[in-house]
Amino acid sequence: MSMTSPRENTRRKRRRDRSGREEIQQALPIDRQLPIYEILKKEQLDLIHEKSLTILTEVGIDFYLEEALEILKEHGARVEGETAYFSPQLIEKYLDLAPSQFTQLARNPERNVQIGGDQVVFAPVYGPPFVYDRENGRRDATLEDFQNFVKLAYLSPYIHHSGGTIVEPTDIPPDIRHLDMLYSHIKYSDKPFMGAVMAREHAEDSVRMAEILFGRENIMENPALLSLINISSPRRLDDRMLEALTVYAKNRQAVIITPFIMAGAMSPVSLAGTLIQQNAEALAGLVYAQMVKAGTPVIYGSFMTNVDLKSGAPVFGSPESQLATLASSQMAHYYDLPFRSGGMFASAKTADAQAAYESVMTMLPTVLGRVNFVLHAAGWLENGLTAGYEKFLLDCELLGAYHKLEKGIDFSEDSLAMESLRNVEPGGHHLGTPHTLQRFDSAFYRSKLFDYTDIDTWVEGGSQTAEMQATAQVKQMLKDYQAPELDEKVNQELLDYIANRKAEIGSQQ
Amino acid sequence: MSMTSPRENTRRKRRRDRSGREEIQQALPIDRQLPIYEILKKEQLDLIHEKSLTILTEVGIDFYLEEALEILKEHGARVEGETAYFSPQLIEKYLDLAPSQFTQLARNPERNVQIGGDQVVFAPVYGPPFVYDRENGRRDATLEDFQNFVKLAYLSPYIHHSGGTIVEPTDIPPDIRHLDMLYSHIKYSDKPFMGAVMAREHAEDSVRMAEILFGRENIMENPALLSLINISSPRRLDDRMLEALTVYAKNRQAVIITPFIMAGAMSPVSLAGTLIQQNAEALAGLVYAQMVKAGTPVIYGSFMTNVDLKSGAPVFGSPESQLATLASSQMAHYYDLPFRSGGMFASAKTADAQAAYESVMTMLPTVLGRVNFVLHAAGWLENGLTAGYEKFLLDCELLGAYHKLEKGIDFSEDSLAMESLRNVEPGGHHLGTPHTLQRFDSAFYRSKLFDYTDIDTWVEGGSQTAEMQATAQVKQMLKDYQAPELDEKVNQELLDYIANRKAEIGSQQ
Repeated sequence: MSMTSPRENTRRKRRRDRSGREEIQQALPIDRQLPIYEILKKEQLDLIHEKSLTILTEVGIDFYLEEALEILKEHGARVEGETAYFSPQLIEKYLDLAPSQFTQLARNPERNVQIGGDQVVFAPVYGPPFVYDRENGRRDATLEDFQNFVKLAYLSPYIHHSGGTIVEPTDIPPDIRHLDMLYSHIKYSDKPFMGAVMAREHAEDSVRMAEILFGRENIMENPALLSLINISSPRRLDDRMLEALTVYAKNRQAVIITPFIMAGAMSPVSLAGTLIQQNAEALAGLVYAQMVKAGTPVIYGSFMTNVDLKSGAPVFGSPESQLATLASSQMAHYYDLPFRSGGMFASAKTADAQAAYESVMTMLPTVLGRVNFVLHAAGWLENGLTAGYEKFLLDCELLGAYHKLEKGIDFSEDSLAMESLRNVEPGGHHLGTPHTLQRFDSAFYRSKLFDYTDIDTWVEGGSQTAEMQATAQVKQMLKDYQAPELDEKVNQELLDYIANRKAEIGSQQ
Repeated sequence: MSMTSPRENTRRKRRRDRSGREEIQQALPIDRQLPIYEILKKEQLDLIHEKSLTILTEVGIDFYLEEALEILKEHGARVEGETAYFSPQLIEKYLDLAPSQFTQLARNPERNVQIGGDQVVFAPVYGPPFVYDRENGRRDATLEDFQNFVKLAYLSPYIHHSGGTIVEPTDIPPDIRHLDMLYSHIKYSDKPFMGAVMAREHAEDSVRMAEILFGRENIMENPALLSLINISSPRRLDDRMLEALTVYAKNRQAVIITPFIMAGAMSPVSLAGTLIQQNAEALAGLVYAQMVKAGTPVIYGSFMTNVDLKSGAPVFGSPESQLATLASSQMAHYYDLPFRSGGMFASAKTADAQAAYESVMTMLPTVLGRVNFVLHAAGWLENGLTAGYEKFLLDCELLGAYHKLEKGIDFSEDSLAMESLRNVEPGGHHLGTPHTLQRFDSAFYRSKLFDYTDIDTWVEGGSQTAEMQATAQVKQMLKDYQAPELDEKVNQELLDYIANRKAEIGSQQ
C-alpha cells in the first residue's frame, strides 16, 4: 500500500499539448488496495446461484426479438414461444467464455481504462431528460447541456470515463440524437465513451464511428465502446436492447448486462429473492452475448433499489440498496466477471443535504464493495430524471476522496514516524517536523469546493452553501475549458459520416 | 439474520405509561449482523501494538496530577517528573483487568445499554458552545437549547443514549453548569447519560446524583455514568481530566479514554504514526483506570481526523479519518475492549450538501467497522462548534437506515420468494403478491423526513429542501414533547442536592 495522494498519482503535471492547449491533471482509475467488504458467505452465494439456475431452467427469460430466439436455439437453449430456458450446463459453458477483465480504448491512449480486477472506473450520470442548476432551475436538457457535461467530465480529474447519454438532448430529434451525442463525446473529451442502444441502427452507427476513430482492427482487439443493456425486469429483454446487444456482441464491443430493478415492484420485497431474480436475468443476458460471439467483453450489472411501498416511488440511498450492491458485487466476483453498480444516487430534487446523504450512502458501499465500473458517479438528482450541474461538481469532490481512501494505510518503516513520535514534546505539535514537511502536499486529500474556513470568514463570504460554491465553479470551468486536440482528417470523416446519416434518416421519414 | 424492520424491533408500540403520558416508540441499540469491515492484517495490528509499547516504555506519557503520579508509582510504573513509563508486562497485566463489555444503567431499565460486543449505541453531539437553526441562525447555546436537544434525543427512536454536554449552556455559570445539565438529562429523558468531567467536584456531583437516582449499590454493580476523558495529545493527560477519571474509576463508573487528535498537528501526518501514538496514549489511560480500581468499565476511544495543512483548520469527513476509524476499531478489538469513535462529523457551517457528504463519509465506516459507542451521532456542525437543530433530525434519519443496514440480508427459505419469482409474469409486478403484502410494513426502511414525492408535488409544496422540512419537524416535536415520569421523591432529592451544592459553590466565590 502507498500513501501517495491522487495528486502524486497523476500521469503528468499541468502542461501544454502539441497545439498549446493546457492539459489537465488526471487521476488514474483507482487500483484498489483496501480489502473488499464482503457481507455474504460462500454458501449464500451458492444458494443464489442455484436458485437462479432453477429460474433459468424451469421458469425462463423472455427475449422479444426473433433473431435472438434463433441464436439461443442454435446454441442449445430450449425456446418456447418467446421464452428461453437455460440448463446449468449451458450457463456454465457460455459463462466460461466471458473474459474476466478487458481494456476499453480511449482516443487518448493514456486514458484507456481497465475494466475488472481491482480497478474502479467512474463515469458520469446517464439518461436524465432534465437538467438543473441553481440559477436557471430545472428545465429540458439540450445538446448544449450534453456538451457542457462532457466538458465537465473531461475536466474532472476524478472522472475516468466520458459516459454515454449524460443527458438526453431533447432539442435534437430522437432518431439522429445519438449521432450528435457520440460526436460530442469524441470532440469535447478524450476519455472513453459509451455506445447508443435505443435501436439497431444506433448501435451500428456507434460501431462505424468508433471504427473511423480507432480503426476496425483496433476495436476488434480491444473494445472502444461500452454499452448499457438494461433488462426490463422481471424476466424480459426487449427488442431494442436485444438489437443493440446483438450488434455490439457481433462487433466485439463491450456490454453491461443490467437488470433494472426497483424491489417491491419489479422483484420481490425480499433482498434474497431480488438477488436470485437479478442473477438469473443477468446470467441470461451474459450467456446470450457469448452465444452471439464467444469472448464478447461483458460486465455483470446491477441497478437495484426499492420502491416506497406506500407511494410506489423509487427510493434511492436506502439501506436495502446498499446491501444489494455489496451482495451483487460478490455474485459478479463469484463468476469472475467485472461488475457494474452504484453511483451517487439521490431521490432529492436539488443538491441539498438529502441528496448528499443519499449519494454517499450508495457510493461508499460501491467503493468498499469493489464495483469496477460506476455509472452515475456524478450529477444524479431526482431519481435520475435530472442531471444537476452543482451536484456533478460536489459529487466529484467525493470521488477524489475515494481515490485516497482506496489506497488504504501505508505501513512502510518511514510512515511509522517513530522519530517524530519521540521528538515532539507532550503538548507540542507536528506541523513543522521534517516528517510533516516532506509530506506536506500529499499527506491529506483536500476538497477544493468544500468550505474549511472559520465562521467569520464564511459569513463575510456570504454564508455560501456548498451548492452555491459549486455554481461559481461550474461557470469558471466551462469558461476556461479548452477541447483536446482531434486529428482534423478524423474529425472531417466523422462529420461527413454524420451528415450522410442524417440525410439518410431524414429521407426515410 | 432477520429482515424485521426497526419498527418491528421496538420494545413496544405507542402506548401510554401510568401517568397517561404517551410513550414513544424506541428502537433497540443495534445488534450487528453484518460482518465487521476490517482493513488491517494481524501483523499490522501487532506492529501498531509493538511500536506503541516502545513509546510507552522509552518515551512515556505525561500525567499532570500528583495523585495520579502516586497511583502510577504504587502500581509499578516508572515515574520521572511528570512522565510515566510503562513496561509491556505492566500494560498487559492491567489491560487484562478491563471488562470486555458492560451494561450502563438507564432510569428506564428497558433503555439500559450494553456497551461492547456487537452492540452499537448512538448518542448525540457533545460539547458545542453554539447552536444553529435555520430561522434564528447561529447563536450562543443556552440551558433551554440543552434541554431541547435532550428532548429531541429522547423522542428519536434511533438515539439510544442521552449523551453528555450536548451543548454548553453558556447562560449558566461554568462552576454550576454541570448540575443543571445532569438534572436536565434525568428530568427530560429516561435514557442513559454521561457524567461531568471539567473538575473533580463535577465528577463527584455526577456520582452523588447517580446515587440518588439509582442507589449506591446498583451503580457499583453496573455503571450509571459513562464519561468522556480526552487525552490532550500528544502524550499528556491534563489535571482536570485526570481528576474526573480518578473519581469515576474509584466509583466504578465507566470512562471513555480518547486521545483527541488532529493528525498533522497533534500527531504525525502519516496514519500509521498516528495510530501508534493514539494506541500508546489510549493504553496509558486505560491502564491507569485499572490501577485506580481493577475492573473499571472502560472504552477504548478514538477521535481522529486531520488538519488542513495549508490553514491548520480541522477537516471532517476526510478519507484519512475513515481509515483511522476502521483501523482503530480493529485495535480496540485486538485488546477485546469496547470501542468509541465516529459520529456525523462535518466541517460545514449549515446542514447543506457538504455537511451531509462529510457526515455519511464518517458515519458509514463507523457503522461498518463496529464502533460500540458513537458519540456525536446526531447534530454536529462546524467542526463541533455548533449543534444544529435541523442537522440533528436529518442525522437521525440516517441512524434509522443504519438500524436496517446492520441486519444484513435474510436468507430464510421464505425470503427467497421462489413462489413469487415463478408466478409473476415477465414484465409484471410484485406490488400485490402475498409475499409483498405480508411484508408491506417491514420490508423497507422509510425516512420520515426525506422527500420522495414527484417534482410537481414538491414544487407545489414550496420546493422545500431537507433542511427546511427538518425545521418544521423540530418545532412539532418540541411542541408535542411530554416528559417521562420521574418519581417525585427522587426528583425532590435531586433538586435539594442541586440547591445545596449551588449555595455551597456560591459561598466559596
